[in-house]
Amino acid sequence: MIPVEIVVTGNELLQGDVLDTNTNWICRRITALGGRVERAVIVRDDMDAIVREIRSCLERSARLVITIGGMGPTQDDVTVAAVAAALHRPLALHPEALAIVRRQYEQFARDGAVDDPTITPVREKMAHVPAGAAPLENPVGAAPGVLLETDTSTVVCLPGVPAELKGIFEGALQPVLQQLFGESAFLEKLAIVNCKDESVLAPVLQAISEKHPDVYLKSRAQRFGSDVKFRVTLSTTGSSREVAEQRIVAAEEDFQRALSAIGASIEAVDAQVG
Amino acid sequence: MIPVEIVVTGNELLQGDVLDTNTNWICRRITALGGRVERAVIVRDDMDAIVREIRSCLERSARLVITIGGMGPTQDDVTVAAVAAALHRPLALHPEALAIVRRQYEQFARDGAVDDPTITPVREKMAHVPAGAAPLENPVGAAPGVLLETDTSTVVCLPGVPAELKGIFEGALQPVLQQLFGESAFLEKLAIVNCKDESVLAPVLQAISEKHPDVYLKSRAQRFGSDVKFRVTLSTTGSSREVAEQRIVAAEEDFQRALSAIGASIEAVDAQVG
Repeated sequence: MIPVEIVVTGNELLQGDVLDTNTNWICRRITALGGRVERAVIVRDDMDAIVREIRSCLERSARLVITIGGMGPTQDDVTVAAVAAALHRPLALHPEALAIVRRQYEQFARDGAVDDPTITPVREKMAHVPAGAAPLENPVGAAPGVLLETDTSTVVCLPGVPAELKGIFEGALQPVLQQLFGESAFLEKLAIVNCKDESVLAPVLQAISEKHPDVYLKSRAQRFGSDVKFRVTLSTTGSSREVAEQRIVAAEEDFQRALSAIGASIEAVDAQVG
Repeated sequence: MIPVEIVVTGNELLQGDVLDTNTNWICRRITALGGRVERAVIVRDDMDAIVREIRSCLERSARLVITIGGMGPTQDDVTVAAVAAALHRPLALHPEALAIVRRQYEQFARDGAVDDPTITPVREKMAHVPAGAAPLENPVGAAPGVLLETDTSTVVCLPGVPAELKGIFEGALQPVLQQLFGESAFLEKLAIVNCKDESVLAPVLQAISEKHPDVYLKSRAQRFGSDVKFRVTLSTTGSSREVAEQRIVAAEEDFQRALSAIGASIEAVDAQVG
């Protein structure tokens, strides 16, 4: 299972001004690809804080580290500089990144979005990447994403504007993700269980989890009520889709059996991916 | 400024099954109280991972550490045990916590939500707190919150079910928060600036930030377009509301002046709190 960590930057998130939906979006996609997001952290737009988090991800040997946000032209956008500092690499103007930024501002000028497409120092900031990194085409905004390989990890920097993040993730980043995750497959099944009390269900879940360590069983905590049914998800990530399916089927059979022993059953099953 | 850190647990969040809205809710309230959320991290329901995060918050001297999630009856809910382990305190059955759990299950039984209110070992798990901690009444669900004071920090554990989290935060936790944050006040003003290009705005924001280090200026990155106006927030946390207001007014005046020098202006201002 390929461990992934996410580092999100933005004071506006920690002030509660903006709800972070990017992390959920990325988590869903990484999970569907067969990756395992181990951890996601939001820090302020502070160089030292971001450097500390990036290093901590690398020390834990996260295979893929994704940063989100802090890539714009303003002075408080310091994520790429922090990645460079965390890896002890100089930050340098990248010709290909500069070409991307230039093309975007020329397009913005044609669209009337900016008055003048000239690459000012403030705009040029977005074309600086850590030594050895490559830019990732941003189909929506001016700031290219950044891709950087270390001996042990792949570090990817994505902008915080959701449309830009999605554009890069689904575009320029796809070949990188395909290579990283290969044939891995995530599979999730949702079982609706006619048991209204989680404390009765808990020992059953525990027994099945122990027998099927590769399958993750989770009952979703709900309100209490006489008409409550529990939603239990069974999920696994296998080296292939077939492996994942076999695991889920085996766990589901044992789960059915254990439920009937406490007078409950699975009322409905819904296969979900990602 | 009182530093606050948040530790959220839940595999379902990192799988992307559930969008975390609790962190945003807590951040908004902490900010409004005059606190400063430095960092929020989501980890899996894994004892070692949670222990590591709690210790890391305490090492950074977070004055208030809030954990969210992992407080239910199931085996994979390990947050309170992890807090105990992080602080090297034994986990013990707390009579007052047990009384809360018992009262809730009696109510659930009267409501028909459970068949039998007997406190089974699985239910009793929710009444275990670290030595020296106190339970916080949960007006909605069975699991009491946990309040724990160390020499340097206050650690609060809240359930992940949003209604339970909000119930405890707005109820039993209020006296603790009042004492912690006192007269501190956060103030935020939103200025709509008729400038369509962030790269032109950036140097102005930088100059004002340098002159008013206590005021945080943030331009919200938007799509590009000929009709774009920038939303710039000016925010500060002062030892009192008056101090905060004086700071914002001074920064806003300088901001107006600097904008007019680049041919832009503030079109509208909106005062916001939290």
